[in-house]
Amino acid sequence: MEAFLKEAKNSSRILATISGREKNRILKEMAQALRENSSILIAQNKKDMEEGEKNKLSSALMDRLLLDESRIDAMAVAIEEIAALKDPVGRVLDGWITEDGLNMQKVSIPIGVIGIIYESRPNVTSDTAALCFKSSNVCVLKGGKEAQNSNEGIAKILQDVLEANDLPRALISLIPDASREGVDKLIKMDKYVDLIIPRGGAGLIKHVTENATVAVVKHDKGQCHTYIDKDAKLDNAIAIALNAKVQRPGVCNAMETLLVDAAIAKEALPQLKTAFDEAHTELKGDSRTQDIIEVSHATDEDYDTEYLANILNIKVVDGVEGAIEHIVRFGSGHSEAIITENITTAELFLNAIDAAAVYVNASTRFTDGGAFGFGAEVGISTNKLHARGPMGIEGLTTYKFKIYGSGQVRK
Amino acid sequence: MEAFLKEAKNSSRILATISGREKNRILKEMAQALRENSSILIAQNKKDMEEGEKNKLSSALMDRLLLDESRIDAMAVAIEEIAALKDPVGRVLDGWITEDGLNMQKVSIPIGVIGIIYESRPNVTSDTAALCFKSSNVCVLKGGKEAQNSNEGIAKILQDVLEANDLPRALISLIPDASREGVDKLIKMDKYVDLIIPRGGAGLIKHVTENATVAVVKHDKGQCHTYIDKDAKLDNAIAIALNAKVQRPGVCNAMETLLVDAAIAKEALPQLKTAFDEAHTELKGDSRTQDIIEVSHATDEDYDTEYLANILNIKVVDGVEGAIEHIVRFGSGHSEAIITENITTAELFLNAIDAAAVYVNASTRFTDGGAFGFGAEVGISTNKLHARGPMGIEGLTTYKFKIYGSGQVRK
Repeated sequence: MEAFLKEAKNSSRILATISGREKNRILKEMAQALRENSSILIAQNKKDMEEGEKNKLSSALMDRLLLDESRIDAMAVAIEEIAALKDPVGRVLDGWITEDGLNMQKVSIPIGVIGIIYESRPNVTSDTAALCFKSSNVCVLKGGKEAQNSNEGIAKILQDVLEANDLPRALISLIPDASREGVDKLIKMDKYVDLIIPRGGAGLIKHVTENATVAVVKHDKGQCHTYIDKDAKLDNAIAIALNAKVQRPGVCNAMETLLVDAAIAKEALPQLKTAFDEAHTELKGDSRTQDIIEVSHATDEDYDTEYLANILNIKVVDGVEGAIEHIVRFGSGHSEAIITENITTAELFLNAIDAAAVYVNASTRFTDGGAFGFGAEVGISTNKLHARGPMGIEGLTTYKFKIYGSGQVRK
Repeated sequence: MEAFLKEAKNSSRILATISGREKNRILKEMAQALRENSSILIAQNKKDMEEGEKNKLSSALMDRLLLDESRIDAMAVAIEEIAALKDPVGRVLDGWITEDGLNMQKVSIPIGVIGIIYESRPNVTSDTAALCFKSSNVCVLKGGKEAQNSNEGIAKILQDVLEANDLPRALISLIPDASREGVDKLIKMDKYVDLIIPRGGAGLIKHVTENATVAVVKHDKGQCHTYIDKDAKLDNAIAIALNAKVQRPGVCNAMETLLVDAAIAKEALPQLKTAFDEAHTELKGDSRTQDIIEVSHATDEDYDTEYLANILNIKVVDGVEGAIEHIVRFGSGHSEAIITENITTAELFLNAIDAAAVYVNASTRFTDGGAFGFGAEVGISTNKLHARGPMGIEGLTTYKFKIYGSGQVRK
């Protein structure tokens, strides 16, 4: 593993010498190569599918694993879209002349070597490799073992394109030891790896955070809330709450708990129940909710659970202060929303809540790179530092100061 | 420790409710309180000085430890200067309207609870506390045990001012257990602490980096180089090299190794030797250097050593490529300089070198917050992410997205 990562680190220098035009041309070749080798890829994928059937993977997992012509074409299109993005490297982020006459330029540069740990979907392999190549980073990838054959197939196709362009295959690679021990080595190699991005279950994230010596940008859970204030337009509130929960319950920006102002609970809860019943949402609520509508009882554990399913906790709270108190206790700093027409209440909520995205009168489901307008997305960071919330390709850069002097010495 | 940090975390919310004007008024009261209580502080400091004498601390350490009227006044002035800075919190960093009509505001916010681990100089206690308070962060401080009485005195004075303003004392505090075990607990409390800043020796930094689960912005070593290219103005080169080494050898932005282009080594080295001999610099060099001037032999270990003293390694290299190769191998990513009149060579160096600050024709000694024009400085980060290089008060903030909708739901 050490020799492998050392090679990755050494190969990173060559990326500084490739122009943006060249990077984009190579990315387009990669997209084309995926299309041209789709039958090989599908054969590789078939091995994973057979293994998955043997291991009785759920139908949802099997679906995520599957590669066919149209999915491979979608992967190619995604790479072409990444090629079309503006180069994130070499932007002048700031500049000034110091009192000593030094001409300062703060410029964006690649991070270096990025380790990415992820699960099932094979398209993450090509997406991530393309995002890293576009931002002049070396990537070392560790996908799920259930997709190992598919990932190897994808990596080989991309590496062949690198080699055909006289570039080292080490710029894009799967780690040689994809076991738990391999991951444990990877996350401690701060000499060669500059950043680890773990995307996956809570167990993986916790393990990586606790054991890494490399910097980590994690993609952790979204315990998202929507608070309906007494000054909300109720129609708006119901539409937004419904969207936040049911439009796609299995994602991190979906709402898990709905907070309802006690002042309007009697009016709002029956209407909300009708709407959620129609969407077949399983409802749980505290005793104040249960006084008004028939739902099962929600415990503190429920309020702390990211269901990723069509299940919703409800709680009646005393105004915006009660909502803030609940969110401070249970929120995960991902996405939180208030529905209100009152500007003072809205600003109080926006300022008090510490989360990557805080909404007034909109669905938490908008928290992603596409909806934010970032183009391709690396993921949704739950870090507080470096990248917070939707992480566009700029999140794969850091900066340095280029300083132009004319003989200055320190007095 | 856990109860203590939980209180720190809880108290952090109150900081969002204090206006910038109030923060500045309280900071000025803190400065005044330090002046008014200088005799108490000096008495506390005397205990540390006596203890230090008993433990036979070096005269340099004893000098760093000492507090007198003028140093206490300097601490007060530093706080007043921090009060005069622009509030780093609440800046709109970016803003746009998304395709869905969401009004996006990316705004700067405090990081939360910041743990700072540092050594000897008691003024770091008041500087750091003031920087954190100004940026609406709670600080938990762990100073050197040789300054424990002085630090307790300073913290008590600042806390009394907080209390007189109806604010919790927990906003500024020393950790209750300043032992190694206490530090080990602190750096693993990611539930309550958002950032750890270790400032100190390599052993401390390594220990914190390897064991922290909290995010770390480290202030590690500066293995800084100056490369004199064949196209340098030699007078410039000698003046800059001399300044980078001898103006203040004990700091992280001082040069440790001078790289000289082989093409001018015969002309440059004798002149450099004369200049450094006058400054009583101890010189070491590789065999190519020794062929031209009389110096002791520099080993690979020397090239890897941050002397923090008036000692300099010299190496003759083959042009800018040779210089880059040496710096890639031995540099610590802090500050690197090239001296040349050739713009192509300069740009090659500026682009190839990955360091926080890369200079052309200036001394590496400029790498600090003051010289960069940042005002007060938290330190000089050797992190690659979040804050790189001189870390002004903006380095104590992160951001969130405030999102203003009008009923938007995700399609």
